[in-house]
Amino acid sequence: MNANPLFTDFYELTMAQGYWKKGLNTQTVFDMFFRRPPFGGGFSVFAGLDPLLDTLENLRFGTDDIEYLSSLGIFERGFLDYLSGFRFTGDVLAMKEGSLAFPNEPLVRVHANAIEASVIEGLLLNIVNFQTLIATKTARIWLASRRGSLMEFGLRRAQGFDGAMSASRAAYIGGAAGTSNTLAGKTWGIPVMGTMAHAWVMSHPDEKTAFNAYAEQYPDKSVFLSDTYDTLGSGIEAAIDAGKKLAGKGKNFGVRLDSGDIQYLSVAVRKALDEAGLTKATITVSNELTEEIVESLVLNGSPIDFWGVGTHMVTGGSESSLTGVYKLSAKTGADGRLEPVMKLSENPEKATNPGVKQVWRLYNEDGSMEADILALEGEEIKTGREMRYFHPTNQGQSFTFAPASAEALLQPAMRAGKRLRAPAPLAEIRAWAGAQFDRIDPTYLRILNPHVYKVSLTENLRDMKCGFIAEYGRQK
Amino acid sequence: MNANPLFTDFYELTMAQGYWKKGLNTQTVFDMFFRRPPFGGGFSVFAGLDPLLDTLENLRFGTDDIEYLSSLGIFERGFLDYLSGFRFTGDVLAMKEGSLAFPNEPLVRVHANAIEASVIEGLLLNIVNFQTLIATKTARIWLASRRGSLMEFGLRRAQGFDGAMSASRAAYIGGAAGTSNTLAGKTWGIPVMGTMAHAWVMSHPDEKTAFNAYAEQYPDKSVFLSDTYDTLGSGIEAAIDAGKKLAGKGKNFGVRLDSGDIQYLSVAVRKALDEAGLTKATITVSNELTEEIVESLVLNGSPIDFWGVGTHMVTGGSESSLTGVYKLSAKTGADGRLEPVMKLSENPEKATNPGVKQVWRLYNEDGSMEADILALEGEEIKTGREMRYFHPTNQGQSFTFAPASAEALLQPAMRAGKRLRAPAPLAEIRAWAGAQFDRIDPTYLRILNPHVYKVSLTENLRDMKCGFIAEYGRQK
Repeated sequence: MNANPLFTDFYELTMAQGYWKKGLNTQTVFDMFFRRPPFGGGFSVFAGLDPLLDTLENLRFGTDDIEYLSSLGIFERGFLDYLSGFRFTGDVLAMKEGSLAFPNEPLVRVHANAIEASVIEGLLLNIVNFQTLIATKTARIWLASRRGSLMEFGLRRAQGFDGAMSASRAAYIGGAAGTSNTLAGKTWGIPVMGTMAHAWVMSHPDEKTAFNAYAEQYPDKSVFLSDTYDTLGSGIEAAIDAGKKLAGKGKNFGVRLDSGDIQYLSVAVRKALDEAGLTKATITVSNELTEEIVESLVLNGSPIDFWGVGTHMVTGGSESSLTGVYKLSAKTGADGRLEPVMKLSENPEKATNPGVKQVWRLYNEDGSMEADILALEGEEIKTGREMRYFHPTNQGQSFTFAPASAEALLQPAMRAGKRLRAPAPLAEIRAWAGAQFDRIDPTYLRILNPHVYKVSLTENLRDMKCGFIAEYGRQK
Repeated sequence: MNANPLFTDFYELTMAQGYWKKGLNTQTVFDMFFRRPPFGGGFSVFAGLDPLLDTLENLRFGTDDIEYLSSLGIFERGFLDYLSGFRFTGDVLAMKEGSLAFPNEPLVRVHANAIEASVIEGLLLNIVNFQTLIATKTARIWLASRRGSLMEFGLRRAQGFDGAMSASRAAYIGGAAGTSNTLAGKTWGIPVMGTMAHAWVMSHPDEKTAFNAYAEQYPDKSVFLSDTYDTLGSGIEAAIDAGKKLAGKGKNFGVRLDSGDIQYLSVAVRKALDEAGLTKATITVSNELTEEIVESLVLNGSPIDFWGVGTHMVTGGSESSLTGVYKLSAKTGADGRLEPVMKLSENPEKATNPGVKQVWRLYNEDGSMEADILALEGEEIKTGREMRYFHPTNQGQSFTFAPASAEALLQPAMRAGKRLRAPAPLAEIRAWAGAQFDRIDPTYLRILNPHVYKVSLTENLRDMKCGFIAEYGRQK
């Protein structure tokens, strides 16, 4: 993790100097949330919390950073001295990493003075936006494969070094079984996986020699890349030749398809393998796979055992950013106490929800998720009691529900700049992410046009929001 | 730069052990190239060379890396010892960073033994694919703005730490005037820029107070964010109030629009500013801008002075990866000399161009670019002499041309693992990238449906390629 607070938008520092000079560096509350789930889907998988907490805990300006800022000629010596001693000393509440998350609900809530809260905006969004995007994308591909075996193969197509490393981490949380990125394997304890490259095949006189040489070296890990010259000709013939020798030693093997029509080729290769008596041999496919392609292959009955996914899994493909934002929800008022604030907007969905808020997840009798509720901090959601909840922007729309159980999702993660527990093992975060898909109706998980999961407001929060809108209307 | 060779796909290491054991660790040549320009465009801007060379020069396995590999239980002690002493000792030829590049032409050519060439594949592609994608995207936005003033505002939407840092670098090469990323400013010497956030406005009782407080602190750098509550109401009124006071002191200022209909609002804000006598005040716009939106605003005559671009500039937006590849083009034959190799494919555009190759850029009398030619190393392209060149996949198609001048684009950048010159100043790379747009017909630069720039083969290379295809056909 990089914990240099210069990794921030320049305006945070110019504003910070303003807060510092004007005595405005008082307590604030910020919410990090997104406005719609990515990929036209119905959910997100929250990821990036542990790296965020590590970064916040270690945030320091170096001497050369202060010198650089000084060289720009717009910061006063007193403010630079203040930055020299800068630490993040705020509190962070957050959902458990790996949690399913929905639009408009805070994933992370920050209580800090205005300067600290501002300086961390960019790095918080950078970490959480990206890892949440990738965990979500991977979960979608995993669901499309009917919870199959995904291998993350994205290093070469990822957006830079950390684009690859953080993507390997987030993809594992989202459901990938392993990664090809060896350094991610070492760093995060993710299983490392791989097959062979065209260059291996081309470094030998022919495919038969290449595959047999590989099988001799790695009898327990042989997956033959069969499309260097002619998949259904020399490629599959050589794979069967090497595979039979392995079978003779009681070893299994696989065939990898990396080009051409995957549906057609996988059926033909399966047939050829079965006819050769190699019914246990596996088929791995790759080549610009997306959740839509994976689902189509599954629905068409393609006999595929392993999915190697690169570009789209590690970059999000056609949607390359979660448009998560970080907005002020409360500030210190004249009386020294926190008071709610709200940003209005000509785009109603860009207006914020005011005040210090908790997110409640309401469950049915059978333990399935029914709806999420934004409440003011301190409001309690009672189980077994019918309550009315309100649509976040269309204030006339409401529903009533008596939850069998209710869970407050935002939990303290950092207090006074210190994290409250050690990072969770990645496998635990991954298991938690996966388990939730059994507790939500599959209609919310559909790849295309999913059912919209409710995120509603309590009556108190609704009233506060309407009050701001009405007040602003009067001033206008 | 991270120079850990574990940042590689796992199969590179398993194949490497195979090369090592089988005496196959002989000299190879690999080409890095892409098969089509991104974003439906006609060109790419090659970026990432200097970071790549730095990384290659410093590539070392640490003791803990070797221990990690050992723990996987599939690498032999002798091979791990070999990796402990691993260095990249190969030669690299490359285009000058910032060069315009086109499909199928090597941007980077690597001469190294099979293990070194394999281990670096992932990091080479990771660095060059991403930075080239972003430099290209930025150049498209810059061209769409009619070479206007772009500010890169992408830190919070970028794909992780290096996704932001490398994007700031590449966006500057591609034509951005500056970045909001303060650490990128320090690291790469890029001008840092910024305006103010909604939180600044909301931290004050009203916009008038907020803008005047900012103007007092930064009289030379005031850009007022006018859309916190009501752009054309309280927002522009407050901006004019603070702006008039600045004008009284002989200072200029700007207004920033970050939501709503940018075309409508920019015209209305311009009118309001002009009517207030503030004709020099500038207008900055932002909010999910793409090259298509920028071009449409320009063509509609929107009075915009500065463009703040985030998400799409730093991630590529809907196209999040340059699908650049790295393919074996020659290997050591039985006689110990380099011999060409070729990968065939059922997708003809996935077949490679065999042999050790140079890229020649052919110019017209007036210095404008006419076509690029792939030639075998050692072939010379003579100026003033008509030659016939061949389509790369449709071998029947050809054209003749007598270049006024011709330039070999691949130049030595690293020899025996040592870079041949210090990194070029970023401003120099940026100037070189920008200058080339004056030497190419604008039809190749069109945002939508550009004219296709020719990348053709010499007769010798065409004959070699046809020979491979015919030979393989005979064996089949």
